[in-house]
Amino acid sequence: DKNLKVFTLNSNPELAHEIAKEIGLEIGQSSVTRFSDGEIQINIEESIRGCDIYIIQSTCSPANEHIMELLIMIDALKRASANNINVVLPYYGYARQDRKARSREPITAKLIANLLETAGATRVITLDLHATQIQGFFDIPVDQLVGVPILANYFEQKDLGDIVIVSPDHGGVVRARKMADRLKAPIAIIDKRRPKPNTAEVMNIIGNIEGKTAIIIDDIIDTAGTMTLAANAMIENGAKEVYACSTHPVLSGPAIERIKNSKIKELVVTNSIPLPEEKMIDNITQLSVGPLLAKAIVHVHEERSVSRLFD
Amino acid sequence: DKNLKVFTLNSNPELAHEIAKEIGLEIGQSSVTRFSDGEIQINIEESIRGCDIYIIQSTCSPANEHIMELLIMIDALKRASANNINVVLPYYGYARQDRKARSREPITAKLIANLLETAGATRVITLDLHATQIQGFFDIPVDQLVGVPILANYFEQKDLGDIVIVSPDHGGVVRARKMADRLKAPIAIIDKRRPKPNTAEVMNIIGNIEGKTAIIIDDIIDTAGTMTLAANAMIENGAKEVYACSTHPVLSGPAIERIKNSKIKELVVTNSIPLPEEKMIDNITQLSVGPLLAKAIVHVHEERSVSRLFD
Ligand SMILES: Nc1ncnc2c1ncn2[C@@H]1O[C@H](COP(=O)(O)O)[C@@H](O)[C@H]1O
Ligand SMILES: Nc1ncnc2c1ncn2[C@@H]1O[C@H](COP(=O)(O)O)[C@@H](O)[C@H]1O
Repeated sequence: DKNLKVFTLNSNPELAHEIAKEIGLEIGQSSVTRFSDGEIQINIEESIRGCDIYIIQSTCSPANEHIMELLIMIDALKRASANNINVVLPYYGYARQDRKARSREPITAKLIANLLETAGATRVITLDLHATQIQGFFDIPVDQLVGVPILANYFEQKDLGDIVIVSPDHGGVVRARKMADRLKAPIAIIDKRRPKPNTAEVMNIIGNIEGKTAIIIDDIIDTAGTMTLAANAMIENGAKEVYACSTHPVLSGPAIERIKNSKIKELVVTNSIPLPEEKMIDNITQLSVGPLLAKAIVHVHEERSVSRLFD
Repeated sequence: DKNLKVFTLNSNPELAHEIAKEIGLEIGQSSVTRFSDGEIQINIEESIRGCDIYIIQSTCSPANEHIMELLIMIDALKRASANNINVVLPYYGYARQDRKARSREPITAKLIANLLETAGATRVITLDLHATQIQGFFDIPVDQLVGVPILANYFEQKDLGDIVIVSPDHGGVVRARKMADRLKAPIAIIDKRRPKPNTAEVMNIIGNIEGKTAIIIDDIIDTAGTMTLAANAMIENGAKEVYACSTHPVLSGPAIERIKNSKIKELVVTNSIPLPEEKMIDNITQLSVGPLLAKAIVHVHEERSVSRLFD
């Protein structure tokens, strides 16, 4: 289909190439470089007049650079007469700033939605938004894919025996439930509370984990504080061993050290965010979302339902 | 006037403090920090309900970081019920990407204008735009201040005798003319041409520079290639000595080395872009635009004409 073109930017070129290959296309020709002062210089090096464009870019760290690259690329594509501009965001940066938690805070997740539309995006395809409400921040169609089947599939093949799926907090129970359904396993929930102000949090576990293999699931693993504390609480409370999984491996600050020093046997993540060499430690497994995103692009392009993808 | 508040971000805090002091205000309380993964975290720490806000931020290098800070700050101010949000951009980044010089390029200067409006800016106050046309990229009022009087004033006080104001290219002649009028001096123009493809450019000088002190003026000095070649051409063609001046000291890449090795006696710039220690070499003089911007803010706030500022 010569009307469909996939372009990459600098966040996730390997994933973009995998997606293009999966669809049976070459990656679109473009140059994304820097002027001497660090300003982004973009040039699209093939005609895209009348084409349906899919740009692959995670707005992961450095988020601001990746966001500006994306906005400038959309502007260039729009001015080059693209038929439509579909933004594929395997990871949606700033998703945690999705509400005013305190007075006089920004709602950056909404700002980003507005900026993408202003630049000229006509559709967003994304994966495991931190809050599903973010779809409503857009006035253009948003297709949200889910990582649970990919993660569940990996654990299914491992055949871990008597397992329990654990949500590290109350916010993640729906996700844990979906995983548990796929793996035909029970769930447990970590119920954190602070008995008195200025005392340490107490981790109470709701559900039976005794003697079982615990699989903790979260959408984002950032500094890994939540995940490693949860893992250690599992072992202390009688779990046999503990696995962790998460769609988006942000892994900032002390994350890798914490994981190394934790009771986590294996952490399973996706490549929605690429991992640099130094984060590729032995007990981290990275699964590709390339086939899923490629399928989603083809479905969207052929105007087929994306929700069918997970049947 | 308790309705007027000045906020700073991270590009130019010293200039912002100078402006606030000049107006007789404290800088607005806000915290602009980073989450562990590098995402920007902003909180406005005083009520600004119903206030007229002036945010001081140059979108100089790192331009993308400074732009995102600005957009997120505007979002926070808007949601905190500011009466209006005036963006003071001493330096407007991406101004050179103001047209499609080749096919399928972005027009980033226009994109930035759209992003600022989308975030919620209600007015822009800026200084020496690379192209005056950029004012037309906005649908909100834009006040453009000029740096020539500040630069001219400095040279006037030096009393350099027989001077000539030089434009380093045809694009800068209007600016050189303004400077020359103020200093009651003649102008000269460097007329570059390439006699044949793949041969070196020839620098032809239009106007009389023999035995005079040349003052070359440009809006932006970036890698300093244009400026240092022009300066050397001046001396080779009989100028007595050569000064250079420019509103915006981008000074990227080889700029400082080139200036050190050039025939420029003194380079005079403004603090529209702050200079880090290592760029503060002996023959660079930095003049403050603080008083000018402070006056402009007061005039705008009191709904007086800004053009009167230069009478
Ligand atoms: N990049 C980030 N890193 C850490 N915390 C964040 C980040 N962005 C937003 N937040 C905060 O995370 C909280 C929302 O997280 P959650 O409760 O998990 O939805 C809010 O208080 C935000 O201020
Ligand atoms: N940050 C930058 N550094 C150097 N050149 C740039 C930059 N941004 C845009 N340009 C290029 O500069 C040219 C415009 O400069 P000018 O002819 O001086 O207006 C265009 O060809 C742009 O592609």
